[in-house]
Amino acid sequence: MTDDEDASTPYGRHRQTTVYTTGMLTGNVPDIPVDPDRLAEHAEEELDGRAYDYVAGGAGGESTMRANRRAFEDYRIVPRVMRDTGTRDLSTTVLGQEFAVPVLLAPIGAQGIIHEDGDIASARAAARWDVPYVCSTQASEPLEDVAEALGDTPKWFQLYASEDRDLTRSLVERAEDAGYDAIVVTLDTPHLGWRERDLDRGFLPFLDGDGIANYTSDPVFRDRLDQPPEENPRAAAQEFVQVFSDATLIWGDLGWIAELTDLPVVAKGILHPEDARAALDHGAEGVVVSNHGGRQVDNAVAALDQLPRIVEAVDEDATVVFDSGIRRGADAVVALALGADAVSLGRPWVYGLGLAGEDGVASVCENFLADLDLTVALAGYDAVDDIDESALRTS
Amino acid sequence: MTDDEDASTPYGRHRQTTVYTTGMLTGNVPDIPVDPDRLAEHAEEELDGRAYDYVAGGAGGESTMRANRRAFEDYRIVPRVMRDTGTRDLSTTVLGQEFAVPVLLAPIGAQGIIHEDGDIASARAAARWDVPYVCSTQASEPLEDVAEALGDTPKWFQLYASEDRDLTRSLVERAEDAGYDAIVVTLDTPHLGWRERDLDRGFLPFLDGDGIANYTSDPVFRDRLDQPPEENPRAAAQEFVQVFSDATLIWGDLGWIAELTDLPVVAKGILHPEDARAALDHGAEGVVVSNHGGRQVDNAVAALDQLPRIVEAVDEDATVVFDSGIRRGADAVVALALGADAVSLGRPWVYGLGLAGEDGVASVCENFLADLDLTVALAGYDAVDDIDESALRTS
Amino acid sequence: MTDDEDASTPYGRHRQTTVYTTGMLTGNVPDIPVDPDRLAEHAEEELDGRAYDYVAGGAGGESTMRANRRAFEDYRIVPRVMRDTGTRDLSTTVLGQEFAVPVLLAPIGAQGIIHEDGDIASARAAARWDVPYVCSTQASEPLEDVAEALGDTPKWFQLYASEDRDLTRSLVERAEDAGYDAIVVTLDTPHLGWRERDLDRGFLPFLDGDGIANYTSDPVFRDRLDQPPEENPRAAAQEFVQVFSDATLIWGDLGWIAELTDLPVVAKGILHPEDARAALDHGAEGVVVSNHGGRQVDNAVAALDQLPRIVEAVDEDATVVFDSGIRRGADAVVALALGADAVSLGRPWVYGLGLAGEDGVASVCENFLADLDLTVALAGYDAVDDIDESALRTS
Amino acid sequence: MTDDEDASTPYGRHRQTTVYTTGMLTGNVPDIPVDPDRLAEHAEEELDGRAYDYVAGGAGGESTMRANRRAFEDYRIVPRVMRDTGTRDLSTTVLGQEFAVPVLLAPIGAQGIIHEDGDIASARAAARWDVPYVCSTQASEPLEDVAEALGDTPKWFQLYASEDRDLTRSLVERAEDAGYDAIVVTLDTPHLGWRERDLDRGFLPFLDGDGIANYTSDPVFRDRLDQPPEENPRAAAQEFVQVFSDATLIWGDLGWIAELTDLPVVAKGILHPEDARAALDHGAEGVVVSNHGGRQVDNAVAALDQLPRIVEAVDEDATVVFDSGIRRGADAVVALALGADAVSLGRPWVYGLGLAGEDGVASVCENFLADLDLTVALAGYDAVDDIDESALRTS
Repeated sequence: MTDDEDASTPYGRHRQTTVYTTGMLTGNVPDIPVDPDRLAEHAEEELDGRAYDYVAGGAGGESTMRANRRAFEDYRIVPRVMRDTGTRDLSTTVLGQEFAVPVLLAPIGAQGIIHEDGDIASARAAARWDVPYVCSTQASEPLEDVAEALGDTPKWFQLYASEDRDLTRSLVERAEDAGYDAIVVTLDTPHLGWRERDLDRGFLPFLDGDGIANYTSDPVFRDRLDQPPEENPRAAAQEFVQVFSDATLIWGDLGWIAELTDLPVVAKGILHPEDARAALDHGAEGVVVSNHGGRQVDNAVAALDQLPRIVEAVDEDATVVFDSGIRRGADAVVALALGADAVSLGRPWVYGLGLAGEDGVASVCENFLADLDLTVALAGYDAVDDIDESALRTS
Repeated sequence: MTDDEDASTPYGRHRQTTVYTTGMLTGNVPDIPVDPDRLAEHAEEELDGRAYDYVAGGAGGESTMRANRRAFEDYRIVPRVMRDTGTRDLSTTVLGQEFAVPVLLAPIGAQGIIHEDGDIASARAAARWDVPYVCSTQASEPLEDVAEALGDTPKWFQLYASEDRDLTRSLVERAEDAGYDAIVVTLDTPHLGWRERDLDRGFLPFLDGDGIANYTSDPVFRDRLDQPPEENPRAAAQEFVQVFSDATLIWGDLGWIAELTDLPVVAKGILHPEDARAALDHGAEGVVVSNHGGRQVDNAVAALDQLPRIVEAVDEDATVVFDSGIRRGADAVVALALGADAVSLGRPWVYGLGLAGEDGVASVCENFLADLDLTVALAGYDAVDDIDESALRTS
Repeated sequence: MTDDEDASTPYGRHRQTTVYTTGMLTGNVPDIPVDPDRLAEHAEEELDGRAYDYVAGGAGGESTMRANRRAFEDYRIVPRVMRDTGTRDLSTTVLGQEFAVPVLLAPIGAQGIIHEDGDIASARAAARWDVPYVCSTQASEPLEDVAEALGDTPKWFQLYASEDRDLTRSLVERAEDAGYDAIVVTLDTPHLGWRERDLDRGFLPFLDGDGIANYTSDPVFRDRLDQPPEENPRAAAQEFVQVFSDATLIWGDLGWIAELTDLPVVAKGILHPEDARAALDHGAEGVVVSNHGGRQVDNAVAALDQLPRIVEAVDEDATVVFDSGIRRGADAVVALALGADAVSLGRPWVYGLGLAGEDGVASVCENFLADLDLTVALAGYDAVDDIDESALRTS
Repeated sequence: MTDDEDASTPYGRHRQTTVYTTGMLTGNVPDIPVDPDRLAEHAEEELDGRAYDYVAGGAGGESTMRANRRAFEDYRIVPRVMRDTGTRDLSTTVLGQEFAVPVLLAPIGAQGIIHEDGDIASARAAARWDVPYVCSTQASEPLEDVAEALGDTPKWFQLYASEDRDLTRSLVERAEDAGYDAIVVTLDTPHLGWRERDLDRGFLPFLDGDGIANYTSDPVFRDRLDQPPEENPRAAAQEFVQVFSDATLIWGDLGWIAELTDLPVVAKGILHPEDARAALDHGAEGVVVSNHGGRQVDNAVAALDQLPRIVEAVDEDATVVFDSGIRRGADAVVALALGADAVSLGRPWVYGLGLAGEDGVASVCENFLADLDLTVALAGYDAVDDIDESALRTS
């Protein structure tokens, strides 16, 4: 059963029968598990342990990761009936740009340790389903190549502001030149978090040379090295570790970054309403409410629990993206109901990448969107923009 | 030890000694586990994995299923003593009809994947214990045959309103002709939920031809097909998937259905007080508070948590049936105390069907009723109609 | 290391060093685990499955059993320091009688299925440590023999009021004659609870002839039989099942029982403040707050959660014993702090009986008392009568 | 990658890259797990069962231990961004003394059962990282030797006040002579707690002669013995058990101890605000909020839940140290935010001692400090003294 008339926009008027019959008609078990928990288990079985743990792990005892997931239990959907959900509109406007779906693929560094095709595979999969993609500064491939793989799909560039301001400027200018639509400045990583899984494995992907393509391809970074990275990759990796972040940043520095570019700037890693307001006061047009998927501070507050406070604290026209803990369509509905404009999906699609490259990411995207589409409809909405807190009962 | 004088009404003045001695006197372990959790485990071991998972599974991560069960923990019975519970009256009046017990067997489609005798076995077991039965539109046998198997036992017909209004009308008229006592319109399934277990197995029972007997036996449905379903069952199954529901329904359409029949109409799948009132305003005489056993929307509110709000929102004479999470007698007592007129039991009897056909369903009914009877008495009541919120301590 | 001067009262001025060194000096692992959880596991491994499950099980899904234990988590001891706990007084006055310790061994029927010495072993162990003992109507040995084994230790007789009032009167008179100090009337068992473990094993100990010694030794009961029980034990057992309880009792009947005897009467199985007041209004001098260890009503309120409400509802001079969930000294301290005059210990000592007969029960008593003594002291008290709600922080 | 300029103060301006690269550059799995949970599991596998359980266990059912850990879930860090955390100051002032870090190694007795080097190894490791160390009265080596191993590192002596006041005086004077900076009087152990693990193993380390070095080296204690401990170690051990504590102490006795010395006195084992005030009124300059790691009273309140109440109850200049449940940097941040001046770390470093002696303790210290340093920074602070309750969201 095909759905030819929708080939250009594979969801939107997405019918769940299409999704079902894909697997049903063959009677085959899908290659990539639909269930995100089984997907993670499958990835754990199949991937190299160091790569899996680098993706799956969090800071310290991973209390923040657990809190992120548990928080969803407290905000429960109250489905409504008889509301005509024959067609649904999943599109929304984020930073003035039309998104076909209220979902971004979160910036993930060092994808090369997961699959040899890295970001290129992920970007192509995102483009297949027109899901906006956030390219990490620590991408496995240069941001220009990732942009090309994305085609017309909305694309944001995630920036780690370097100690070397010339390098920061160079990265921003390259992103602008490559056609990115926004700069997402990650503020929650002045230092890399205390990741016990990685420490107990003695593993940091960058030291193996992955996730530094945007650096080794950058003229400013290359100028810092005594030898070209091709000749001395270890020295390049160590230089990266030294300069990738600037732990001395203060709010004024966000203004400096905003002035480097005409692109809209979004501040990622916001958990406190005052920080959200500060970001907007210093040139950001939006924030990503996130605790970095629990990877930075152990025993931190669940990102979801801070979302309504931040939504309340900022102007209505400021963009709020929610990140940290999204696994299924219902999670997205909850975050949208609490005031997010869009959600950011992380680990699941990386597992898809690890298991089957581009096809794996595409499969995770397809399943997430179909689940979201159905959940929106079954919650009683025909447009994601209509979802508000009345969709929920909070405990 | 027999209880001959009660042969015509096997419970009612049910003595627990009767129940006990059934197994006690033989010293045998019962074929069908009394414990519903062990029953489910046993079913998981014995049944085909696809069939078991189709019954056992829920939407998405099954958070709603867990919430349904957990909700009972918050409403705890405060047993009263010295109240003369020598005889108990489990009967009640629902939609003006006398029910011997405040329990219905919930509508379950595609029972043929569970046991070859399907609905006929279940209906006969229901009739043995005089437990009202709700026949699904997606029954494995035509509704007329199910009605015959039920005899004088109260019978309701569950309706999925089709995109094809003539088909809807035909199903309602057939139910009325076959002697059903009420039409239960399911409102929470404009689309089939995102069931990860089924998706990961590539399984949908209808595509294998089960659960569409009411369609293939319907003249309106047959007219839609190029070939009789006997000749091309696959095409019939796919036509079913296309037309079984109408996602564009609005409240006015419920009025249209109510006008098709003189039977009372009940709206199933209500979770919001406003939807309960809307249903009653559009021709329904009652509602089934239900989240479809957690099969439609993940992270949805526990049905039990919405029950008191809905009871409060509707007129006292409106019928309120509770569905979603009932496993034991104490669960029924809690729901009755929160204002339900009757409860609807689902998965456990389906497992009984899978393990031992009609006898299995009968055994689950017997155990549930004996447990209910005892729990009512030990909570301090001699009539289910007397149970109200004073029976509970809420946390 | 001995503690000879305390031989006549083995606790009271109990020093924890005595307890420790018993095992320490030998370096041996004790035969009976000190840890009640390991004790239960050990019993599960060693005992006949039917006997273990009869003791360990509860009503329905055992939600009440879990709630009983979980409730203790909400009332946490706030230990106080520098209060001189060099000697402790564990004694208290219950029903005007001096108890050496604020603990009773709960009435347990059918002990013969656990150990061939049954109640006699348990009573002797209780006497060793001067722990008050409650003899069950369903004792494995006649109440007169149990009384003899108890010697001067406080002894209460637990009564199931029979449908046959002459039998009830006979049991009460026998208890009075045998020297019991009080009659504990169990009100929460007009019917036996729905015990799924037993049902799934097809087991009821009484039908195997255990737990009916007080009946087969009773002239009124024997008169009901066509043949002496020695000749037709099965018929005796079945007659027992028919008459052991009277489900038609109302509060006035408690007054009738109270008038049968000069002994104080205590009403067991009280969970509602109104029922506590009713019991006292109808001749009881005290109540046992209890849900029968979770064996009667599933999803019932935790007994501990009702304790403060009942203490508040009754006169200060009414006796309140707490039962259901006590496993360790800290549990007893919590119940005493919430207003109980004494606590009733059940399953643990029955496991001790099963593992090692009299010595096993004695070992459980010794450990429980030593733990209680230490916990009282370390909570900052030198007398159990001083413990009140200020010992706790409630959540 | 080395960090030579910081060799004399290995943390302070601690860069996480240093920590990371230690393991990263070699690619080796560290000998001592970084993850404290894995560390404990590893210790359980490697150590003698009796020694492991002595360290790992708690009182009764260990409900207090679980509550200690669970309490941290209720106080969640809300990380702040853009605050310049390029350098961090972990130092603080405790009892007027400069601490390089707000962490003490808790007093642990009988370390000799864990590792043959006992306290000497631990003290040397503490000195390596300049972490203040609290020497237990029940140290495995004489307090003078421990002081020598500590060098200039801040050192406190933990005192169990003996029944023999001359012995108490002798211990205090020896500590003062040996250069200790404070006396920590443990108030929560008038009796040893009811430790089921030890009881079920028949084990008490002191009876095997470990943990009594401060006694056998003390002239007052030796005078109590008929034979020198070298000749009759068993008698010495039993004498220790008799006199190590004084269960009759009252608050006035704390004043007596305070007058024995010019050193500041800290009262350890405080859980109630009134006891905190009483300690300060009787000569203490500070308190250690602690439930002895859950080793004394089962079902006791989580120490963390009492911390804010105690901080509120005492004068601002009183020292408050938090103990019981600290495992990671985030735990320390939470306790500091709730008003503690420093935290006390216990079991983890003892596991390190068991696995690798001095190097093991040093490794645990290094990891804890690096984690703390990072968590402080990532929470948005550049100095631990700035952390207050605004760092948290409480549930």
